[in-house]
Amino acid sequence: MKAITVERQETTNGLILTELPTPVPAEGELLIKVHAAAVNRTDIVTREGKSGYASNPILGVEISGVVEQANGRSEFAPGDRVMGLVNGGGYAEYAVMPAERAMRIPDAYSFEQAAAVPEVFLTAYQTLYWIGRLQRNESVLIHAGASGVGTAAIQLAKKLSGAKVIVTAGSQEKLDFCGELGADVLINYKEQSFEQEVLKATDGQGVDLILDFVGADYWDKNLASIKKEGRWVLIGILGGIQVEQVNLFALMSKCVQLTGTLLTPRSDEYKARLTADFVKDVFPHIEQGEIKPIIDTVFPLEQALEAQRHMEANRNIGKIVLRT
Amino acid sequence: MKAITVERQETTNGLILTELPTPVPAEGELLIKVHAAAVNRTDIVTREGKSGYASNPILGVEISGVVEQANGRSEFAPGDRVMGLVNGGGYAEYAVMPAERAMRIPDAYSFEQAAAVPEVFLTAYQTLYWIGRLQRNESVLIHAGASGVGTAAIQLAKKLSGAKVIVTAGSQEKLDFCGELGADVLINYKEQSFEQEVLKATDGQGVDLILDFVGADYWDKNLASIKKEGRWVLIGILGGIQVEQVNLFALMSKCVQLTGTLLTPRSDEYKARLTADFVKDVFPHIEQGEIKPIIDTVFPLEQALEAQRHMEANRNIGKIVLRT
Repeated sequence: MKAITVERQETTNGLILTELPTPVPAEGELLIKVHAAAVNRTDIVTREGKSGYASNPILGVEISGVVEQANGRSEFAPGDRVMGLVNGGGYAEYAVMPAERAMRIPDAYSFEQAAAVPEVFLTAYQTLYWIGRLQRNESVLIHAGASGVGTAAIQLAKKLSGAKVIVTAGSQEKLDFCGELGADVLINYKEQSFEQEVLKATDGQGVDLILDFVGADYWDKNLASIKKEGRWVLIGILGGIQVEQVNLFALMSKCVQLTGTLLTPRSDEYKARLTADFVKDVFPHIEQGEIKPIIDTVFPLEQALEAQRHMEANRNIGKIVLRT
Repeated sequence: MKAITVERQETTNGLILTELPTPVPAEGELLIKVHAAAVNRTDIVTREGKSGYASNPILGVEISGVVEQANGRSEFAPGDRVMGLVNGGGYAEYAVMPAERAMRIPDAYSFEQAAAVPEVFLTAYQTLYWIGRLQRNESVLIHAGASGVGTAAIQLAKKLSGAKVIVTAGSQEKLDFCGELGADVLINYKEQSFEQEVLKATDGQGVDLILDFVGADYWDKNLASIKKEGRWVLIGILGGIQVEQVNLFALMSKCVQLTGTLLTPRSDEYKARLTADFVKDVFPHIEQGEIKPIIDTVFPLEQALEAQRHMEANRNIGKIVLRT
């Protein structure tokens, strides 16, 4: 089958389309004919060789497609349309997926739409609810509001919790889009001091929860934006990995809970439980059309590198998808 | 009444014994004839003028004594022996306390023993259970094991949860004492590399929970000592307030939850709920004599400064109490 793998020689820009054996599903796995795969920052990190957790030589952590074969008992049968997280191997014609992590694709969805669901919606659900414990009518600050996870998180926080949603983004176009999705307060971080705007929007109290994709650059400003006893979920480091000086007393006197997290390196069992909770809580809203994946661009599989470059340039609103 | 308050002129070393009006209990408060008060690091911070959260000019955040007057409905009546947290005002002959924060003193306890209970046991309970969510048979690393909170936390983690308790301390005498209280693994941080010992004691996995009273000096070592998805509660900064160069990806890839906390600045309502939960879960063990406060030294009220100096020198094993 055709697949995209990492070429370590600089001259090929890091990715090559190659011929590899079709994977064989282990007990409890599905073999899936991939129709679409989505691009994630973790793929870029893997391409750059900065992280070793994807033992699969083929890139890609989420797909949509049709079940070709189910090895062992499963609620899915050949011919079923499914989407979900894979342990690498997504940028290819075929991939294997633990059956308990597969989700049935809503009838109204194309394969491209379905591929845009798993990673960002599961991450948004995990960070808002499992980790962030968002309660009804609380306030949440979502950085990079127009990103894949950002657009998913805005919708979940509004539809599931009626939260006050405050977003940051770097252009009016992105902010307008966040507003259409339901965000209540729109902050252009290039033109405004976001922590001042957050305090203005929360009667000087700060937000109950922060979804932080930025990291180092925003450390002090996030600390200024969070309410006493607030929760802060660190999920990305777009703004740098290293904070030069951390004042621990500030974390103590505000009684802040800071949780670092990544979804990809979590265990199979964790991903299966998360998927099950997500299906239970969110699928009714998806099937009603109240919550939907946001797609920026669809590239053919052969243009995986161009697709990643598009993400690296931060030009996208929502997800970037590969059609296989 | 006589009371200890802070003198800002350097010549008196910061504390003076003075005559102040007896406080008047507001609705819902008890007026208590104080028999003993205990010394806490927060008192030292207040004396040094580094923190402004104690609006009461009199030092002291926990007392034991006898109810003199109850203003409003309460389960306590004049003559009852009670102990609990106060919003400042403990180093004095009389103090007021919200009634819903008072705990009945076990019959077998002296007033000195009772004064040694509230702050350290409530803090240990809060950090191990409310924040740290310690589960049965998990492992916990308790720094400063021979301190007031340390000696309380060792007992709670063993008796309530059968946890594997790993402690650090700076002398063999302190470690021996921790061992008598039930600690399983004793590490002399002056002679051993604690993170290596922790990994040895946990099959290379690290601990589920860290109670960290040290802060900056131990940052990297704590990160090395914690299990994936572990909880880390930051409750003191004996080893410095400022961490240079924090790598955020390390928090993310280990999915660590770091929570800063202090008990004194929490709301009245929080302290009341915490006290109620503590009484329900821990009092049966206290009344059976399975869990007990550890007292290092009792000073007369007039020697409050000497008592604080004793704590500053880190010479104590357990609590330092003032007899009023």
